[in-house]
Amino acid sequence: MAEGKRGKVGSMAGEEKVVKKLEDFGLSMISEVQKEISPTFKTTARTKSNVFFDEGLGYIRLGDKIEERTFINVGQARKFMQTIAIANKCKKFLKERSHTSIRGLYYQLKFSLGDTLDEDMFAEQSESNPLVEDLEVALNVKREDLNLNTDRKGVVAGGLVLNDKFGGDETTIDCSKQGRSGWMIPSDVDNGMDFVNVDADYVLVVEKDAMWQRLNEDKFWKKENCILITPKGQSSRGCRRLIRKLADRKLPVYCFTDCDAWGWYIYWAIKTGSINLAYLANDIAIPEAKFVGVTMRDIKDYEFLGKLTINAKDVDIKRAEEMLAYDWISRNKDWVEELKTVLKTKKKIEQDALQGPRLSFVGDYLREKIAKKKFLS
Amino acid sequence: MAEGKRGKVGSMAGEEKVVKKLEDFGLSMISEVQKEISPTFKTTARTKSNVFFDEGLGYIRLGDKIEERTFINVGQARKFMQTIAIANKCKKFLKERSHTSIRGLYYQLKFSLGDTLDEDMFAEQSESNPLVEDLEVALNVKREDLNLNTDRKGVVAGGLVLNDKFGGDETTIDCSKQGRSGWMIPSDVDNGMDFVNVDADYVLVVEKDAMWQRLNEDKFWKKENCILITPKGQSSRGCRRLIRKLADRKLPVYCFTDCDAWGWYIYWAIKTGSINLAYLANDIAIPEAKFVGVTMRDIKDYEFLGKLTINAKDVDIKRAEEMLAYDWISRNKDWVEELKTVLKTKKKIEQDALQGPRLSFVGDYLREKIAKKKFLS
Repeated sequence: MAEGKRGKVGSMAGEEKVVKKLEDFGLSMISEVQKEISPTFKTTARTKSNVFFDEGLGYIRLGDKIEERTFINVGQARKFMQTIAIANKCKKFLKERSHTSIRGLYYQLKFSLGDTLDEDMFAEQSESNPLVEDLEVALNVKREDLNLNTDRKGVVAGGLVLNDKFGGDETTIDCSKQGRSGWMIPSDVDNGMDFVNVDADYVLVVEKDAMWQRLNEDKFWKKENCILITPKGQSSRGCRRLIRKLADRKLPVYCFTDCDAWGWYIYWAIKTGSINLAYLANDIAIPEAKFVGVTMRDIKDYEFLGKLTINAKDVDIKRAEEMLAYDWISRNKDWVEELKTVLKTKKKIEQDALQGPRLSFVGDYLREKIAKKKFLS
Repeated sequence: MAEGKRGKVGSMAGEEKVVKKLEDFGLSMISEVQKEISPTFKTTARTKSNVFFDEGLGYIRLGDKIEERTFINVGQARKFMQTIAIANKCKKFLKERSHTSIRGLYYQLKFSLGDTLDEDMFAEQSESNPLVEDLEVALNVKREDLNLNTDRKGVVAGGLVLNDKFGGDETTIDCSKQGRSGWMIPSDVDNGMDFVNVDADYVLVVEKDAMWQRLNEDKFWKKENCILITPKGQSSRGCRRLIRKLADRKLPVYCFTDCDAWGWYIYWAIKTGSINLAYLANDIAIPEAKFVGVTMRDIKDYEFLGKLTINAKDVDIKRAEEMLAYDWISRNKDWVEELKTVLKTKKKIEQDALQGPRLSFVGDYLREKIAKKKFLS
């Protein structure tokens, strides 16, 4: 799975490719049944022992361990059948050119399967996930390619123009003409979605929506010729995928978060991917990403920040300790120093603190740090 | 406060009006100090005993009980001083034509007040709220008019064109040309934000973003000539204000939520406002709103829904019981029948269930119910 990008599969031709994959998937089952052997498919194991940080690639990915799903197995039969039913529905959605959510999928299955469907298995996204993930990994497609929408979150402003083919219409989206709102990042930024023009020197990812609004009001993206993105906290799949696609255009990616557990997590999830989405890392991890701030060492250059620290919470301390135990962080001098300062001072700094002297100071801070390349990586 | 709309105060002229209000507020304090009396201001009490459901207006509003805030009062001195400091900062933001969040405001105060500022008081939005609310009520303005951004959430598609004056630029936003994403509802839909054109027969408010995406893909808003809005769960202030402004244009407002505790709450908060925001009810409550579904009685007309109910949770049962105890609901036959059915069957229905027979069925359902005016109100 780590070889070669899956990337965009759902242009007209891509859509047909996915349908073909689903059909082949079904035909191989039928052929097995006809041969009187148990229908079976293979998927890469997503167990903890098959997830590792790949030093060379710089992200968390799945290993090569393969698992078999087979119908004639008491523990697997029900789930196996449901996975096949999901594949069948997704083929239908693709042919109809309609999208739905996992919840919509659940009701389609319940409508046709009735009581044989285990409601609890689909009750929570986290419980239905394994079945859809099995399909994604077995077929080497993203669920977005199967016309399943994922939660969307995140906003963009800046020199990015997109062409959005959707619901039979075609729309040009100019992210430099979205006023106070910005362009909302959709679930799927691949299928029917093309970059028409990318005119920017870098991508700035800002943790908080409030900070994004602040920078958008000051036209930071226009003055600095960058693309300004907020994931609004933890990044959605669509947001990560969009940043990945911009990084593929050789745009540097700088992340600007709080100096605390949540901020660090947001940065590292963007950079190295996460354990949960290790199976997608190739499509969404951005190992090139750098951390522009806020850092504890900023206090040396911006003295006022020393007075605007707040007390670190238990979760911040615990997270700093955990991170120091990761191999790839413990070898990174800058991050070790940073995290040890947090542990020593028991303080944290929010990105909002950079508005202390004046609201527009945050822009000056970013400008200076980016110009002087004061990054952690 | 219930008399007359505050509405839009922040056009060029409005901005100056708010600055004038803040200046008068400060001048009256100074004059009191010079007269050697304790500076004092009046605000409408937001205590439980001063919040009630106004049968005539159809929403939850504040009564007439006035409270005084005064500096020479051991229990009030610190908060009083902080409220004045907030007023001073907001005047500055308005003059600078810059916005920030409550968190940005906190750091500006911390920067200038240092240790006299109580961090914990500002630690959570809920704790800093009372001070900002005091100002909003005392001055009869919204915090958005004070250049304080609130959390934004919610998306629009349909026949609505807006003019957005923001950060020195002017942008035309056409909500019928936003592709798969839609237009994201900002914090402030009044100041610098004008309706250029509203071309729709009604407003449809859809609880879930996933359902909004489904209807957007089917171009429901285009086929039915409506404005399609999702608050993405509970409505933000900006979302409610936008719906209120559309209702002011005489557009009927129909709400489409799950048939469960959360769905009912979303509907009633849109319609009657909520206890927390009673002080804003005049600007954001939409008593004209009607409930289009999902309802338990839908099962009579759409038999398949009977098979797609799921078990009500404790919170649904508890909420149904609470709602039946409200005067204005207990007098509403349709709602009483509806809630009693939930209590009897202990079942609930999600809006997603309407995708059971086919993904596009949900559009047919809405079309039919709206055409036949099958609403609860």
